[in-house]
Amino acid sequence: MAQSDDEKWMALAIEASARAVEAGNRPFGATLVKDGKLLLVAENEQIVSGDCTDHAETVLVRRATAKLGAASLQGSTVYASGEPCAMCAGAMFWAGVGRIVFAASTQDISDCFGPPVLGAPCAEVLARSDPKPRIDGLLLRAEAVAVLRRAAQGSRGARN
Amino acid sequence: MAQSDDEKWMALAIEASARAVEAGNRPFGATLVKDGKLLLVAENEQIVSGDCTDHAETVLVRRATAKLGAASLQGSTVYASGEPCAMCAGAMFWAGVGRIVFAASTQDISDCFGPPVLGAPCAEVLARSDPKPRIDGLLLRAEAVAVLRRAAQGSRGARN
Repeated sequence: MAQSDDEKWMALAIEASARAVEAGNRPFGATLVKDGKLLLVAENEQIVSGDCTDHAETVLVRRATAKLGAASLQGSTVYASGEPCAMCAGAMFWAGVGRIVFAASTQDISDCFGPPVLGAPCAEVLARSDPKPRIDGLLLRAEAVAVLRRAAQGSRGARN
Repeated sequence: MAQSDDEKWMALAIEASARAVEAGNRPFGATLVKDGKLLLVAENEQIVSGDCTDHAETVLVRRATAKLGAASLQGSTVYASGEPCAMCAGAMFWAGVGRIVFAASTQDISDCFGPPVLGAPCAEVLARSDPKPRIDGLLLRAEAVAVLRRAAQGSRGARN
């Protein structure tokens, strides 16, 4: 069956999540797409950098701003291998991201790694926001969860 | 009447919020306190930097990590002149901040500046978190709102 564009961009985010694990970081990746074009791929960097704000989506927002300009994020779509936490959902909201698509759910992530768990679903965090980004979940969930499980086997107890 | 320690640290955060306005940024400041000692003061930097993640509390988390080490945030208290948005609440959660105290509410901020508004109250964002930081609101609210109002008069329509 032909892969949709959404699946193509999500597959790249999941590949980035696997690369993050290879690099010694947490198993999350994200892609930035605008007007049908891939602008940036980012991975979680928080273990190597030692900075807990270096989740894939927040890295993506900061790096896109620095490299491509803030306008690159306005009205864009971000594909995240894991459901964005409140920090990342907020960063994408302030950046003007128009649509957020995720694969593995917050519950999937929590099932693999346990606490600390921030817990609030992305849609709940953004429920009162104005404007309100569109949120689509669980695209290629099984593929993303497979990466989470491999990472969980390698590093029990690491932070999400 | 004698000023409590909480009021003293919050007053410094509100002073930082006023300095942020002077520097051309959004009217928010934050202080990091641990074991009764002031470790760091941060201001919103998002207009001058052009990076929408440069809210005072997120700047504080990143700078404390870089300058003082990640352990400086574990079990600390952060005083924020404005109720932390979801991004900042998440950043503080991941950093292990144990207590969050804020002055002006999300509603106060929204009343001054309007959209974009992220909206979710800090306590709601962290309601399902494990561990759950303690959150105390509205300390020196009037003083913080006075800075917000002055800033709103100077720059209608700027982003929060």
